[in-house]
Amino acid sequence: MTTIIKNGTIVTASDTYLGDIYIEDGIIKEIGVQLKKDCEIVIDAKGKYVIPGGVDVHTHLNLDVGIAVANDDFYTGTVAAACGGTTCVVDHMGFGPKGCNLHHQVGVYHGYAEGKAVIDYSFHGVIQHVNDNVLDEMNEIVNEEGIPSFKIYLTYDYKVSDEGALKVLLQLKKLGGMTTVHPENHDAVNYFRNLFVKQGKTSPIYHALSRPAECEVEAISRMINLAALADNAPLYIVHLSNELGLKYIKIAQDRGQEVYAETCPQYLLLDEEKYNEPNNQGLKYIMSPPLRKKYNQDFLWKGIKDGNIQVIATDHCPFAFNKDKQMGKDDFTKCPNGVPGIEERIPLMFSEGVMKGRISINRFVDVCCTTPAKIFGVYPKKGAIQVGADADIVLIDPNKEVTLTKDILHANVDYTAYEGIKLKGYPVLTMSRGKVIVKDNVFIGEKGYGKFIKRQKNMYKNNFI
Amino acid sequence: MTTIIKNGTIVTASDTYLGDIYIEDGIIKEIGVQLKKDCEIVIDAKGKYVIPGGVDVHTHLNLDVGIAVANDDFYTGTVAAACGGTTCVVDHMGFGPKGCNLHHQVGVYHGYAEGKAVIDYSFHGVIQHVNDNVLDEMNEIVNEEGIPSFKIYLTYDYKVSDEGALKVLLQLKKLGGMTTVHPENHDAVNYFRNLFVKQGKTSPIYHALSRPAECEVEAISRMINLAALADNAPLYIVHLSNELGLKYIKIAQDRGQEVYAETCPQYLLLDEEKYNEPNNQGLKYIMSPPLRKKYNQDFLWKGIKDGNIQVIATDHCPFAFNKDKQMGKDDFTKCPNGVPGIEERIPLMFSEGVMKGRISINRFVDVCCTTPAKIFGVYPKKGAIQVGADADIVLIDPNKEVTLTKDILHANVDYTAYEGIKLKGYPVLTMSRGKVIVKDNVFIGEKGYGKFIKRQKNMYKNNFI
Amino acid sequence: MTTIIKNGTIVTASDTYLGDIYIEDGIIKEIGVQLKKDCEIVIDAKGKYVIPGGVDVHTHLNLDVGIAVANDDFYTGTVAAACGGTTCVVDHMGFGPKGCNLHHQVGVYHGYAEGKAVIDYSFHGVIQHVNDNVLDEMNEIVNEEGIPSFKIYLTYDYKVSDEGALKVLLQLKKLGGMTTVHPENHDAVNYFRNLFVKQGKTSPIYHALSRPAECEVEAISRMINLAALADNAPLYIVHLSNELGLKYIKIAQDRGQEVYAETCPQYLLLDEEKYNEPNNQGLKYIMSPPLRKKYNQDFLWKGIKDGNIQVIATDHCPFAFNKDKQMGKDDFTKCPNGVPGIEERIPLMFSEGVMKGRISINRFVDVCCTTPAKIFGVYPKKGAIQVGADADIVLIDPNKEVTLTKDILHANVDYTAYEGIKLKGYPVLTMSRGKVIVKDNVFIGEKGYGKFIKRQKNMYKNNFI
Amino acid sequence: MTTIIKNGTIVTASDTYLGDIYIEDGIIKEIGVQLKKDCEIVIDAKGKYVIPGGVDVHTHLNLDVGIAVANDDFYTGTVAAACGGTTCVVDHMGFGPKGCNLHHQVGVYHGYAEGKAVIDYSFHGVIQHVNDNVLDEMNEIVNEEGIPSFKIYLTYDYKVSDEGALKVLLQLKKLGGMTTVHPENHDAVNYFRNLFVKQGKTSPIYHALSRPAECEVEAISRMINLAALADNAPLYIVHLSNELGLKYIKIAQDRGQEVYAETCPQYLLLDEEKYNEPNNQGLKYIMSPPLRKKYNQDFLWKGIKDGNIQVIATDHCPFAFNKDKQMGKDDFTKCPNGVPGIEERIPLMFSEGVMKGRISINRFVDVCCTTPAKIFGVYPKKGAIQVGADADIVLIDPNKEVTLTKDILHANVDYTAYEGIKLKGYPVLTMSRGKVIVKDNVFIGEKGYGKFIKRQKNMYKNNFI
Repeated sequence: MTTIIKNGTIVTASDTYLGDIYIEDGIIKEIGVQLKKDCEIVIDAKGKYVIPGGVDVHTHLNLDVGIAVANDDFYTGTVAAACGGTTCVVDHMGFGPKGCNLHHQVGVYHGYAEGKAVIDYSFHGVIQHVNDNVLDEMNEIVNEEGIPSFKIYLTYDYKVSDEGALKVLLQLKKLGGMTTVHPENHDAVNYFRNLFVKQGKTSPIYHALSRPAECEVEAISRMINLAALADNAPLYIVHLSNELGLKYIKIAQDRGQEVYAETCPQYLLLDEEKYNEPNNQGLKYIMSPPLRKKYNQDFLWKGIKDGNIQVIATDHCPFAFNKDKQMGKDDFTKCPNGVPGIEERIPLMFSEGVMKGRISINRFVDVCCTTPAKIFGVYPKKGAIQVGADADIVLIDPNKEVTLTKDILHANVDYTAYEGIKLKGYPVLTMSRGKVIVKDNVFIGEKGYGKFIKRQKNMYKNNFI
Repeated sequence: MTTIIKNGTIVTASDTYLGDIYIEDGIIKEIGVQLKKDCEIVIDAKGKYVIPGGVDVHTHLNLDVGIAVANDDFYTGTVAAACGGTTCVVDHMGFGPKGCNLHHQVGVYHGYAEGKAVIDYSFHGVIQHVNDNVLDEMNEIVNEEGIPSFKIYLTYDYKVSDEGALKVLLQLKKLGGMTTVHPENHDAVNYFRNLFVKQGKTSPIYHALSRPAECEVEAISRMINLAALADNAPLYIVHLSNELGLKYIKIAQDRGQEVYAETCPQYLLLDEEKYNEPNNQGLKYIMSPPLRKKYNQDFLWKGIKDGNIQVIATDHCPFAFNKDKQMGKDDFTKCPNGVPGIEERIPLMFSEGVMKGRISINRFVDVCCTTPAKIFGVYPKKGAIQVGADADIVLIDPNKEVTLTKDILHANVDYTAYEGIKLKGYPVLTMSRGKVIVKDNVFIGEKGYGKFIKRQKNMYKNNFI
Repeated sequence: MTTIIKNGTIVTASDTYLGDIYIEDGIIKEIGVQLKKDCEIVIDAKGKYVIPGGVDVHTHLNLDVGIAVANDDFYTGTVAAACGGTTCVVDHMGFGPKGCNLHHQVGVYHGYAEGKAVIDYSFHGVIQHVNDNVLDEMNEIVNEEGIPSFKIYLTYDYKVSDEGALKVLLQLKKLGGMTTVHPENHDAVNYFRNLFVKQGKTSPIYHALSRPAECEVEAISRMINLAALADNAPLYIVHLSNELGLKYIKIAQDRGQEVYAETCPQYLLLDEEKYNEPNNQGLKYIMSPPLRKKYNQDFLWKGIKDGNIQVIATDHCPFAFNKDKQMGKDDFTKCPNGVPGIEERIPLMFSEGVMKGRISINRFVDVCCTTPAKIFGVYPKKGAIQVGADADIVLIDPNKEVTLTKDILHANVDYTAYEGIKLKGYPVLTMSRGKVIVKDNVFIGEKGYGKFIKRQKNMYKNNFI
Repeated sequence: MTTIIKNGTIVTASDTYLGDIYIEDGIIKEIGVQLKKDCEIVIDAKGKYVIPGGVDVHTHLNLDVGIAVANDDFYTGTVAAACGGTTCVVDHMGFGPKGCNLHHQVGVYHGYAEGKAVIDYSFHGVIQHVNDNVLDEMNEIVNEEGIPSFKIYLTYDYKVSDEGALKVLLQLKKLGGMTTVHPENHDAVNYFRNLFVKQGKTSPIYHALSRPAECEVEAISRMINLAALADNAPLYIVHLSNELGLKYIKIAQDRGQEVYAETCPQYLLLDEEKYNEPNNQGLKYIMSPPLRKKYNQDFLWKGIKDGNIQVIATDHCPFAFNKDKQMGKDDFTKCPNGVPGIEERIPLMFSEGVMKGRISINRFVDVCCTTPAKIFGVYPKKGAIQVGADADIVLIDPNKEVTLTKDILHANVDYTAYEGIKLKGYPVLTMSRGKVIVKDNVFIGEKGYGKFIKRQKNMYKNNFI
């Protein structure tokens, strides 16, 4: 099949120019000035920005948190992603049966995704326990399964000890893999949760108050220093939410440590006040880390601009407000954690970031597409508009005005955290490996079209030093 | 004419990929995967990096400094540039007769360049005096002559007062132009020069001692604050040489000021000790600002990596060591200021920057080609490998080992400041608007081939915010 | 004469303790636990803080600014000082006839003060022009006249050039003296003043807008760097008003430069909004530098706490609101610059600083008494409660509540900038060389009692390094 | 008994002056100018600095570390202290039998000290385990026993969990007490120790390599953030050894947290290279945290000067090199940790700090005497020369030149870590509560003369905010 995208304004992480894109067999074969090609499909992109499909490296599809299961599976979740301009997800595998080996969950997740995903995908490994078997097994997972990143949690049921974290960091350093971390201090969070429950302080705002910024910051600095101790192992910090954590990260980066930081739209655009919305709507925003005080947002935007934050992802983890979230209506500790966002990310970052002048359009492409693809080894197939890359392409109409509301979104969940936000600019076409799968916000792709990507090791460092 | 560059590793400011480049009439028309084109010229770039031609925004060709004239004219100077992988220069106009208007020097410089330059070029305006006529005239120079940047000097004969600087900043802010500045405190430099001469301290090292880093830093902070006062006018600081100045610049950038910084290879690679070389060889390095203490180099490299320094240029200003420079043999104040470097820049930055792991190859392209082109408005014709751009392209062979020595260089001057440095990687082909003008270090282009470029206003800010 | 102060809480710059103070011939002879002394005068200080008399190193008594003369002479001004708990002033000499030598103004100021001052005093020299004669004369002024500090202005009629500043710094470095500076960029201030007048923007707020923080900051950084160039000459920056200037000062101090900073109560407690008070009351606050945006205040308080600001002085310069200040009612540029404060300083700093928990009582004594005395060489006679020191002592009643209002103040001026501020704690007794000169806000001293103090060179550095 | 110290130069944390000190019944009763007193004892202090006796808030007398017992008991240890100019120690209680309550060790330590100590003393509590009983018991220890500070260890056998630390911080915040912490990451230290032993890397340098700076820094940041979470509980960090930790501490202090830092002479003056001394002499320096790379020293000195480090203590913990330390001769992990220093502190800080111009003599008194006394509540009895204070006084002869060597020292241990260092200035007389106990380096006091001091709560904060 041959396709041409004509007259668009092509945007990369550093450049912006006019050109036509010729696609053959799902691959960008040529980029040219007024290419003369006889194509089966001709797309006119005049007046549109033509960007690489978004790469969302932090999602939780099918996630079973015990008391509930994230409402999106690999079908509904990737449909939503695609409609929002994302063409590749790297999903975090959830926890398997206690004591299971790493391959177990790899198998489970292949089962979840195959035949369902509508865009290409990969998985992050998850560490449930650390022993010699697990450490040995990593070798295969990284080198044979094509999954070179693993997440550790410092809180929740499968929290990893300092010794465990150190061993994972050391092993992944040796294997060329990446340790990612959910940083929150378990003991402190637990202490405050128990205290508040005992005191009858159970409304949503106590979710935020039970895990203040310092809970996160403590865990960030712990991991940064353990990574330094682990032969300077690379470290990727997920969902950074606050200024102080950023300050610690910057100190590490200035020392030359290979520390990456990800933030999410919710931390850039929403704040703690949301927990006080009437009618228990605060439950919608129960996620960890929680929303923070508003002043943090400026610092996070500056972190993106300055390069100390390299990635914007979503931590997409949808639970129905009218069902799952209501478990927490009398006690925030009973509420499943998570917020949807897989579809909102690209539109929000374009409108709030680029159109409001906070970041350039190139930096937008960089943090939403290119750098996540590099760090997690799906580049240059993904994350780039250049010949040889997969034709994962999104058209954004900068003049399209949209009011975000649940009705126009596709995730299998009954709310959006951004209800009512007015956007300037919206994705109008999404292409995955040369095939148009979304047009004008209508999914026209095919269930199961998405393929698993065996990922490479971190390509960011070699490219960028 | 049609040309194809096949199988190269194309490098942009953010991406690296394999592809073929098809060129027609001097323009990059197509980039593709194994393009099938019947071209008059076929260049095999296998194993080579294919980068945009270098853009050197700080040169002094034909410069008359009163006691001497820079030895390179627009022919010899641009031949040297081309051989070193640079395909566009923005030259600083020198001073005209006292009291002359701005158009006068524009005319003079067109006269210097036409029929001589072998690559495309533009000029920076220079401010000799500030009055209403000059401020009015700027409008035409910016908008009709296509010269939207002007340099002011805070020292030397045509130093501008604080009031003058403020007026220039305000006017250029209004016109969308750029103020660039040579920052050194005139009174302090003069005081120390006179003192040292009186004391008989006239050897080359006293050149450095007569203009310590604080002379430069004082002037940087003065201009930064005047720019803030001038309605936040954009400001471009040339040839930053030291850590403390960088710290001040960073403070301004962190406050949101649009302040850009340029450094040069000499400040990254050479240090003050050079002035003590035997046989008066220290004269070779007499330039302003002077070489600094070695510890500054690490900070400048970090500034490049972190993005606080956006541009690497050369301040190329060649005077013959055996003739011009000897005027200073008994008194450094008699020595014409300047050092050649137009040809050495790209090889040095590639070898010392990329190959030694200090910056990524993409950052190398960014600071040597793309960002200078954007800031000074020759982008996207120059500074980018993308369709629609001029085919100003350079091939670098990363395996070619070269010992830098005067003999292999082309500038019309009898020394290089980098004599004997061993390089890994060197440009092996330079193309200007589709025409190969250098091959294997031999200039095969044509005198007068270069054209004047009417420049746009700063495109960096709009692209990057 | 013998006096004893019994049962007070004695406070020094580092310690707080109970004790009795025995005074003989104006000198603190003994400090003891329940001293048994038969004294002519017995003062019960139970429940009072007993602190060293305040030392105000920045006042302008008798100052002739051409269009007006500061309303306080050495009698009224020092009465006000004494009533406010200050027992020593170092006054800035004003400008004499153009071209006059340094001794000229020394003579004039001795004439002003002798027979008038009610507390001890000294003068700062002022530089009107810089030439070899002046530089030579400094030697005598420093070493024979006992005036080891000189002020230079970077704006106003007698502004000093960079070369002049450099020479003063170098000469005072050699002599062991101190350069103090009024830092504002002359050209910028002038430009904006002229512009606003031309535009008819002449209300008081335009005073602030015509000399933004960057005017001051530019001049601060200029002086800091000139001081570094001048063999690391010591530098004292008067009336620091803003955060950015503090940041620059901190960089210099961190580099090891001997740079001191003074701020004043008006910059800690009042802000730019004052210029918008109705009925032209904004004229009351016309001073240079002007009041700044409120956010700066927190940074200045932090600067005091952290030690980057060493001194709180007043810049006392009173002009009658209903007379002098009215010259500016149609044009702020016609309004004499200055604000009274000599009497308010100690009460404000005690109440707003100590009682509100911003600084400790020891730090209060340090910045208001001890360190200014050390830096300007009147220590240990002044600025300390210790045996051998002059019995310049103030009692503060921490429980006395006072609403500041013109009526209770003693300066010869018809307003206070702090009208209506409620204070907790107030001086209730002031003693100068053992003589009680103020009791319960009533001056009971004697005109002409005050003596000129030949000052030592900076004693802070030797004490504190 | 009455004593007078005549003609000395009295030094406090902020002032320096000449005066006589009259002492009655162990208390400073009067300070005066040439006091006329008929005293039993007359001491001529002409040419000497008269400072408050040193307060060493970090010692380990009698400490039983399982494999060995610190060689100094409360007799030999306090004799050494006194000879070195220290008149008060706050000793860290060691661990009692597993599960014992807090009172148990209080009893044990009173037993150790009574009848032995030659100077006054107190104890810090130590936390072995955290439960409701212990937390309750703290109340009595703080308020009845007069021991308002407790130490927790984050490594070794009695390491406290994050939850435990949080509870201790919260409880002491409530009680007005102080949490002190030995910060090292247990898991990381253990991992590296085991690894090195397994690899046969057992020489002394591996002690340092097994607990790199980041082990300490991690634990510092953990405690800082837990303290912030614990309602901003005050926190005192013992034996800070490195730059990065200081940076973290500074961030917390800048945020307004009440975080105090202590360093020790060994970290200011010795470095990691010591571990490589021949003949296993590296064992002498086995302490935790270990000596660091030399560059850290400049930062620690700057931290003292800037006020981010408030206290210099010793961590005195002497083990005989020829006996105890030899347990580690084939394996550093078998070597008891600790280094003597109780006697060397004041002489080292005076000579290396004051005489070398790194800190002023007042700052020396502040960090060695006054501030530790304030923070740990023995002020103003101790740490100050002022009337009403205990006559704990030391005379330093600034002209006395001494080469430090084991032979002149008094601790019950066979080496000093500072062997051969040449000192300028040395204590020549030590007085405890009015009694001369050391003269010219000879102990002339009395065993058991020292008394236990019931300590107050932190007086630094109230004094200094």
